[in-house]
Amino acid sequence: MKNLRIVKVGGNVIDSTEALEAFLNEFSKIEGLKILVHGGGKIATSIASGLGIKAQMIEGRRVTDSEMLRVVTMVYGGLINKDIVVKLQALGCNALGLTGADGGLIQSKRRSPEPIDFGFVGDPCGVNISTAATLLEGGITPIVAPLTIGGDELLNTNADTVAQTIATALASEYKVTLEYRFEKAGVLLDIDDPTSLVEQIDAEKFNQLKQSGVVAAGMIPKIQNALAAVEKGVESVYIGGTKVCS
Amino acid sequence: MKNLRIVKVGGNVIDSTEALEAFLNEFSKIEGLKILVHGGGKIATSIASGLGIKAQMIEGRRVTDSEMLRVVTMVYGGLINKDIVVKLQALGCNALGLTGADGGLIQSKRRSPEPIDFGFVGDPCGVNISTAATLLEGGITPIVAPLTIGGDELLNTNADTVAQTIATALASEYKVTLEYRFEKAGVLLDIDDPTSLVEQIDAEKFNQLKQSGVVAAGMIPKIQNALAAVEKGVESVYIGGTKVCS
Repeated sequence: MKNLRIVKVGGNVIDSTEALEAFLNEFSKIEGLKILVHGGGKIATSIASGLGIKAQMIEGRRVTDSEMLRVVTMVYGGLINKDIVVKLQALGCNALGLTGADGGLIQSKRRSPEPIDFGFVGDPCGVNISTAATLLEGGITPIVAPLTIGGDELLNTNADTVAQTIATALASEYKVTLEYRFEKAGVLLDIDDPTSLVEQIDAEKFNQLKQSGVVAAGMIPKIQNALAAVEKGVESVYIGGTKVCS
Repeated sequence: MKNLRIVKVGGNVIDSTEALEAFLNEFSKIEGLKILVHGGGKIATSIASGLGIKAQMIEGRRVTDSEMLRVVTMVYGGLINKDIVVKLQALGCNALGLTGADGGLIQSKRRSPEPIDFGFVGDPCGVNISTAATLLEGGITPIVAPLTIGGDELLNTNADTVAQTIATALASEYKVTLEYRFEKAGVLLDIDDPTSLVEQIDAEKFNQLKQSGVVAAGMIPKIQNALAAVEKGVESVYIGGTKVCS
């Protein structure tokens, strides 16, 4: 099986032109097959606010009503996705941007409105492996925006979940490594101290970290996602900084 | 050589949900290889106005400044493109949306600012045939937004020209027919009388129509595009209504 690197880059990197360009410069140098999944960043909130649409949040999570779905379709699927594609093309990487709707790449189910109605939000339930393989084998690097398709609806979907879904589905065809790249050096025992990096995490270590309360709340689903990916056949998962060629 | 139908659908069809859905229903039924190129419609102007950006026009043509480029990237590459993709996927057509930047599909040169500076507008100068062929041979129907790539810039490009550029480039690999689909029945001698349809146009007939002044100004570049496409190897060009299966 060929190697395939699936890299997810977070919203904070996307919000900084400088950090994004440095990351894309690194990403473009990765040899062999690769897929980039990008998060949303704060641009959607500022465009929505410009259009007079208020971002609704419940328990720190965005509610995607029909107006906000239009905004994230424009911003994630259009603005951010094409900005990345153009920059990578200029760096000599044959990038092609898509959402989970394109080529039926990621099918999802709209999340139940009970107990909380998050609106047009989808949980992935299927991957069109043929679409991904057609692009990869054609010398194309897919750049995936965090939107999926549920029947005749586009649905907003967590970018970490999108990356994990693609990684586990493609593990049947490729030797997949999944990499969560963001502005920190990795999982830190002390968020302000880069030297407190945890080098290796397995299920046991994760339970210890969780029980001791040193892992930040936002990091818990990321590690859970990572462990689930490894259980489903992904070779290894890396959670760390944006220096992808190191 | 395999047959390939390249269909361009105009902005007025896109502006009407009903007309667009009827058209896509027809388009989804076309058998064999096909590509859809879509225009922009008026949504970009209304989104821009919502964001407080004024549409600048010179001689009836839009000026694409950097603010407007962001809007058309969001609206053409995001909102409209993904709306079409989701509708076609729901109709069983394996659509994948892209701009001319994706997979380097259409390279262009930014138009000279002399005599009129139209801003971020590009004239096509190259097609990545391999990207198109990879998608088509992989059972994917490309849905192309009217944006192209000039170096490290995304550039706004006339949708008729995008369709003609792809059609002539792919004529070396496929037996291509190019179809301009819009809300009228075709080239009409009297714009209000559908029975005044001109059935067949060649260079001679076009000159007659132009000299007699019966062809509307907006139709002249469309016919010129069509005749140029035939000269460059496209089998035939159809200018007509949205009933694509008739």
